[in-house]
Amino acid sequence: MTKTRTETDTMGKMEVDASKYWGAQTERSIHNFPIGRDTFVWGRPIIRALGILKKGAAQANAELGELPADIADLIVKAADEVISGKLDEHFPLVVFQTGSGTQSNMNANEVISNRAIELAGGEMGSKTPVHPNDHVNRGQSSNDTFPTAMHIAVVLELNERLYGSVGKLRDTLHAKAEHYKDLVKVGRTHLQDATPITLGQEIGGWVAQLDYALAEVKHAGEGLLDLAIGGTAVGTGLNAHPKFGDLAAKKYEAETGFAFRSAENKFAALSAHDALVQTSAALRTLAGALMKMANDVRWLASGPRNGIGEINIPENEPGSSIMPGKVNPTQSEALTMVATRVFGNDATVAFAGSQGNFQLNVFKPVMVHAVLESIRLISDACLAFNDNCAVGIEANETKIKANLDTNLMQVTALNKHIGYDKAAAIAKNAHKKGLSLRESALELGYVTEEEFAQWVVPLDMTHS
Amino acid sequence: MTKTRTETDTMGKMEVDASKYWGAQTERSIHNFPIGRDTFVWGRPIIRALGILKKGAAQANAELGELPADIADLIVKAADEVISGKLDEHFPLVVFQTGSGTQSNMNANEVISNRAIELAGGEMGSKTPVHPNDHVNRGQSSNDTFPTAMHIAVVLELNERLYGSVGKLRDTLHAKAEHYKDLVKVGRTHLQDATPITLGQEIGGWVAQLDYALAEVKHAGEGLLDLAIGGTAVGTGLNAHPKFGDLAAKKYEAETGFAFRSAENKFAALSAHDALVQTSAALRTLAGALMKMANDVRWLASGPRNGIGEINIPENEPGSSIMPGKVNPTQSEALTMVATRVFGNDATVAFAGSQGNFQLNVFKPVMVHAVLESIRLISDACLAFNDNCAVGIEANETKIKANLDTNLMQVTALNKHIGYDKAAAIAKNAHKKGLSLRESALELGYVTEEEFAQWVVPLDMTHS
Amino acid sequence: MTKTRTETDTMGKMEVDASKYWGAQTERSIHNFPIGRDTFVWGRPIIRALGILKKGAAQANAELGELPADIADLIVKAADEVISGKLDEHFPLVVFQTGSGTQSNMNANEVISNRAIELAGGEMGSKTPVHPNDHVNRGQSSNDTFPTAMHIAVVLELNERLYGSVGKLRDTLHAKAEHYKDLVKVGRTHLQDATPITLGQEIGGWVAQLDYALAEVKHAGEGLLDLAIGGTAVGTGLNAHPKFGDLAAKKYEAETGFAFRSAENKFAALSAHDALVQTSAALRTLAGALMKMANDVRWLASGPRNGIGEINIPENEPGSSIMPGKVNPTQSEALTMVATRVFGNDATVAFAGSQGNFQLNVFKPVMVHAVLESIRLISDACLAFNDNCAVGIEANETKIKANLDTNLMQVTALNKHIGYDKAAAIAKNAHKKGLSLRESALELGYVTEEEFAQWVVPLDMTHS
Amino acid sequence: MTKTRTETDTMGKMEVDASKYWGAQTERSIHNFPIGRDTFVWGRPIIRALGILKKGAAQANAELGELPADIADLIVKAADEVISGKLDEHFPLVVFQTGSGTQSNMNANEVISNRAIELAGGEMGSKTPVHPNDHVNRGQSSNDTFPTAMHIAVVLELNERLYGSVGKLRDTLHAKAEHYKDLVKVGRTHLQDATPITLGQEIGGWVAQLDYALAEVKHAGEGLLDLAIGGTAVGTGLNAHPKFGDLAAKKYEAETGFAFRSAENKFAALSAHDALVQTSAALRTLAGALMKMANDVRWLASGPRNGIGEINIPENEPGSSIMPGKVNPTQSEALTMVATRVFGNDATVAFAGSQGNFQLNVFKPVMVHAVLESIRLISDACLAFNDNCAVGIEANETKIKANLDTNLMQVTALNKHIGYDKAAAIAKNAHKKGLSLRESALELGYVTEEEFAQWVVPLDMTHS
Repeated sequence: MTKTRTETDTMGKMEVDASKYWGAQTERSIHNFPIGRDTFVWGRPIIRALGILKKGAAQANAELGELPADIADLIVKAADEVISGKLDEHFPLVVFQTGSGTQSNMNANEVISNRAIELAGGEMGSKTPVHPNDHVNRGQSSNDTFPTAMHIAVVLELNERLYGSVGKLRDTLHAKAEHYKDLVKVGRTHLQDATPITLGQEIGGWVAQLDYALAEVKHAGEGLLDLAIGGTAVGTGLNAHPKFGDLAAKKYEAETGFAFRSAENKFAALSAHDALVQTSAALRTLAGALMKMANDVRWLASGPRNGIGEINIPENEPGSSIMPGKVNPTQSEALTMVATRVFGNDATVAFAGSQGNFQLNVFKPVMVHAVLESIRLISDACLAFNDNCAVGIEANETKIKANLDTNLMQVTALNKHIGYDKAAAIAKNAHKKGLSLRESALELGYVTEEEFAQWVVPLDMTHS
Repeated sequence: MTKTRTETDTMGKMEVDASKYWGAQTERSIHNFPIGRDTFVWGRPIIRALGILKKGAAQANAELGELPADIADLIVKAADEVISGKLDEHFPLVVFQTGSGTQSNMNANEVISNRAIELAGGEMGSKTPVHPNDHVNRGQSSNDTFPTAMHIAVVLELNERLYGSVGKLRDTLHAKAEHYKDLVKVGRTHLQDATPITLGQEIGGWVAQLDYALAEVKHAGEGLLDLAIGGTAVGTGLNAHPKFGDLAAKKYEAETGFAFRSAENKFAALSAHDALVQTSAALRTLAGALMKMANDVRWLASGPRNGIGEINIPENEPGSSIMPGKVNPTQSEALTMVATRVFGNDATVAFAGSQGNFQLNVFKPVMVHAVLESIRLISDACLAFNDNCAVGIEANETKIKANLDTNLMQVTALNKHIGYDKAAAIAKNAHKKGLSLRESALELGYVTEEEFAQWVVPLDMTHS
Repeated sequence: MTKTRTETDTMGKMEVDASKYWGAQTERSIHNFPIGRDTFVWGRPIIRALGILKKGAAQANAELGELPADIADLIVKAADEVISGKLDEHFPLVVFQTGSGTQSNMNANEVISNRAIELAGGEMGSKTPVHPNDHVNRGQSSNDTFPTAMHIAVVLELNERLYGSVGKLRDTLHAKAEHYKDLVKVGRTHLQDATPITLGQEIGGWVAQLDYALAEVKHAGEGLLDLAIGGTAVGTGLNAHPKFGDLAAKKYEAETGFAFRSAENKFAALSAHDALVQTSAALRTLAGALMKMANDVRWLASGPRNGIGEINIPENEPGSSIMPGKVNPTQSEALTMVATRVFGNDATVAFAGSQGNFQLNVFKPVMVHAVLESIRLISDACLAFNDNCAVGIEANETKIKANLDTNLMQVTALNKHIGYDKAAAIAKNAHKKGLSLRESALELGYVTEEEFAQWVVPLDMTHS
Repeated sequence: MTKTRTETDTMGKMEVDASKYWGAQTERSIHNFPIGRDTFVWGRPIIRALGILKKGAAQANAELGELPADIADLIVKAADEVISGKLDEHFPLVVFQTGSGTQSNMNANEVISNRAIELAGGEMGSKTPVHPNDHVNRGQSSNDTFPTAMHIAVVLELNERLYGSVGKLRDTLHAKAEHYKDLVKVGRTHLQDATPITLGQEIGGWVAQLDYALAEVKHAGEGLLDLAIGGTAVGTGLNAHPKFGDLAAKKYEAETGFAFRSAENKFAALSAHDALVQTSAALRTLAGALMKMANDVRWLASGPRNGIGEINIPENEPGSSIMPGKVNPTQSEALTMVATRVFGNDATVAFAGSQGNFQLNVFKPVMVHAVLESIRLISDACLAFNDNCAVGIEANETKIKANLDTNLMQVTALNKHIGYDKAAAIAKNAHKKGLSLRESALELGYVTEEEFAQWVVPLDMTHS
């Protein structure tokens, strides 16, 4: 039988596993919200952000004379352990709880309070010398702390996970684009053969999309530097020191290195999460760009014989238990599946973001969860795609040349020399008789062999 | 200067264009909701449904003794003109108005009343002998009439437009599947060459998807036969004859031929439109099926030289002003664009459908508009695709054979004769040296020429 | 250091943790797809379905003479352990992998093979006497097995989890509707006071929505009984016994009690998952209905003093660390957050479902994962809402009566006695002077006290 | 019978209505794409943008020596008429056509060519002296011109329509916020009574959301200044003068006043429309903000007697044909319906935006149409909401005061004087006995009348 400890809140007593730091309100939430427990317990990013939140709040309160220094020190010590990940097992709550994240805020208050009490040699559950509400939650309300933790968590995940992962893939592709900048191949529009481009230009288009999308994510992420902290219950800041919000934000900057600031309008900061919606949307744009790239990769690698086959990608696993020698573009598949998931997460975020009422939006947890999931999945999938596919992309020069040699659209280069009509006649004659352009042109006698060689130069057509 | 007539409602007088039948409330709506006027004025389906609604209501009320026969006759005559389309110009209102569709209900009441008055030789605007509220709207409220009109409109559009249009395309594809049922070609999974199928099987997969999706749309459409009529303001039926709902539904059945019935639970019928949400979702599934088919068509037709090129599709317009001889799969493009639009419309419908409060959902107009738009676009695009693309799909047998001859995955048929390992060796040897399967098999000496000819028969592999 | 075992596949050797049953392909997948590992490892429903899949396949193959009885018996024994959950730790793969679910199919093949070898006293990794491909995967391909497992998993989750959970909430609400069937209160349309209804009618509207949505989920779920099994690689059934698909489906029915059948068109069954899209859409409709209900609950419970306050809901946790005595509608919040998540999951499913090419849709894992997540979340949230909120809903009869007494819309009942105009005058006079309807009616002298008492009877107005 | 003129293109002759300027390709498109003709014909923004596009291109080509000055002048004159709207009837094509917008590009080429020919006294259809391809389309391809027109159209609509319309509503709300900056009322979180705020603060939260969303739309709109022009068929710029793209962009700036520039990476500019996706997403955020505001407005105006009733909104039309005196929040309803439509449009845009292949995204028309529709609807609805609702919002001070007087959450202000526990006791006692806070506080004897008056000052609580 598990040993328990009695914890109390304003509704009374609760028995809690004695090996855990959490208190009565966390325990109640475990019982009241058994929803998706397998996979929806908060992970590192939110727990860490809650630690940062509480640490900075204690420091700010101490500096403003709202908390005794020794109490604040104890809170900081315990919060540092939360930040480090040491206490993750003491955060058992799931996403689907009170829509303001109240229970997770209280979870942090209770764990930090009990751990601080333990550090001080006190009795856990006694709320002495460190009280979860009066001290750890000093000058705060779930309504301003949870959105603050949301922003901190997302900013850290973007900066510490996403930008690097996507950037790594971007750089790999950029290097490929440079490497193949002069390898001429057929272009394709409407899925139909078109005038030539270089493989480097083709890949460079993907890079340009990633650059744009990353810049947009970063722009949206800037909006997350505005924090709700200091707004307390309804945005007026009731019961918080007037300088608390600004000072706490400074502490978060000191802790993380990111220039957090107290939001100008706290009423909006509690009742809406539009910067999160915008971040989600930018992640969706990024996912769309990745989808386009991954689709191009798998189509270009299609075949080996009955497809396009202009690039080779690494063979990472047996493709088929029935068909030997089959190489499937599995990294593209994983990445495009991630893209569809990110689109869905974004639909959740935007819907939830529109549903605020009066002074509060009560869809906070589901919003931040979806955004964090999107960040994680994009980051992981980009790394996997980079390491297991992108770095190994190689031009199939034989196929590229064969395609280019049969391509009819290079006739376009003759327009200025012999006119559109004769050029068209050459292309149509070639198509009809299965000739190459050169053969057709010579057969019709519109150009000499020398002229054709001089005028129809695919590489020239790519750097017009 | 336009000649005007004075109309009145409970808020006072309004000047209305004398050449129009509408009254004060319609006029107010024109002024108050100048939103998207170019493209969001209600079209035939809703106007016609409003006519059917009012006609049947008058007939039912007369039969129940709630309306004098002569008044009812006048209403029926005027409503018949609304049904016929003769009075469309008298329905000037847009989708974005009161969320219960009140103004459009009143628009119908006013137009029918004034036209009936005119037929009776009375003075328009006098509300005598036919009153818009007391007579035309007898035993009704916008809250039950507008959703009734919504259902009638959608049921008619599904039956008279969508089923036939999509069915026509389905039948064309089915005929193509039959025609090509023995034409063997390479199959493709993961975009990679796979074991053979017939072109008929490939096309038959599209037909099966259309059959399923159409059946699901029809199933959802059945739910639309339940009408809100009889619920009046809040679902209790206050001020309507107790038998009014059932009898009106019978009249709608008589008018249209579809088995409408009064909904069992009127509270849900006013406060939610889940059958419409389901219909929209089934249309989305249909759009998804069409997207898959249209994508397959354009990929199979890709080329002409540097793509897959296994089918030819009709050339309907010049493909490029720069590149002569280019044929683009434009019907596929129009159809897939329609698919993305239907997905968006469905997102609107589901979102709006979730936003009811208490006894009313006030997103009625936007919901029915989006569903009607989806029906219209799918129908039109399927007809266009059918007439301008599907009927002209032809196998490019030369390319199909060439692909099949180089396909390596047919090695799978040797598994049972020489074992998976030797089969794999043949495939890998062929791939490495650029040989055909036959060449590789003979080179390795695992089979004789006769055995190969007997065992590797693509057509057999498709009807295993 | 972990003890390892050498496993092999067609690409060579892999070292695998000796305490695990999986083989080389599973191990490769772990390395190649480190995507969302924290939360996207497959859970019970898919693992169990894979066990059912492989057990039934072995039984069918044995019966058709495709597998020796002793080999089949060993597979069945090992598969039974997979079904039971005993081997869950041997299924380490994540959702984001090959889009056909190949690695998870191979994971099942490898685990069952090795466990069967162990049961037979053989050497794990030797593929003797039970080979993962030749025996466990006999007559199968990932392309038909994984979608088969998808359907089995979803059908079981719907039947064993969702229907009961949602049904329980539905029954609680139905009982409440019965209990309060004569408690008259104000109705509300456009958020504005309207004619009376009973609380039972109001709750009954929610029940009707749940009944409809559940029926639609069940209808869509019927479509999942069609299985891809028997189609193998591309839908032609190459290398499977012609009767295999049908017989395997019979075995699944025997195992689960649900009437699975082999899909009529296997090409569609591999290249599209429209029945899953439809199931997801129906779950979205259900989520929309739950959202409407949960919103109504929290608005009706709003207050306690400055809101509507017509019902009381259980107080489950302290509402605020700042504001004492605050009771928040936290179960409504969790449930509506779930609804937004289900909407997002559905967006993922529909998008992914539209992206098939040729003979395969390679978004299988992300689709089934999203549907299973929606089922789980709706089920859990409905149980939590039921137990912690719905069962405790109680009418606040004092507030209901107070509201009803001041409600002006009951004037509607006077229409038929004194005419719409005088009724309107009474309402407007009451509104202007802050009178009750009765006071206003008597002041204006349009009715006597007796007449008012006789005509304006709220309960009568609710059962018109 | 309509008089016709023979027009030709590379596919042959077409008879065209002699009163229209368009040519053979436009005529073909009319026949091939009869999809949604009622409502999907391009409107002013795209037609005008096509005019601007062609005018600037002619100017740039002339300046670069690619077009004779007299030809360019004729084109400019005709294009000016397109810009002015004079030739709108000559643009009959619908959205659902070739996915690159080819037919609409050709429509512009043909109309401008024929009108220029007419101005020059030539014969329409003769392509002399102004050829639709060689002159009007000089150095251009649909693949770069249509996305250029898309950007120009959206930039103009944002600047000339949206910013002003939304800004007007924003300013009205801002003025209301200023006006009511000291009117204290109850705050509400979780729909439950909370500590006081001012009405000005509440409205100010909406303003802050609008400010943020507008800034984000403007940021995204900046990305639309990058134009595809100069990329021609595949992004390489084949057949365009090397300086053409930059110079054309300068011309567009001169014409419109917006700082258009030639996109750095033309390959991405043709194959993706991420700036449009981002713009759509920002419009969705704006729609979400508007939805929150409009919902707050209708809830605050709910009643008149059985709701919250803290604000009055203008009565614009009779609310109910059954219930006299009913005022419905119809402008909120129209605006929230618009919001759901914008969400749907955005789903379309993001989906379509992800579907590019190789050198082209062929969902261009559906994307720009949806964005333009969103801009139009938001703009129109904001103006309607502003004029018919926002300007008339008035505090119902009686109700606000009554609510405030009964509000219990002001007890929070006592925390620092008598401690949380005693404060809680006062609140609970008041709730239980139906007392006011003051009554309860005095009854329990925790504070004196003077202390209560001094400490519990709602206004002070709002500016903490």
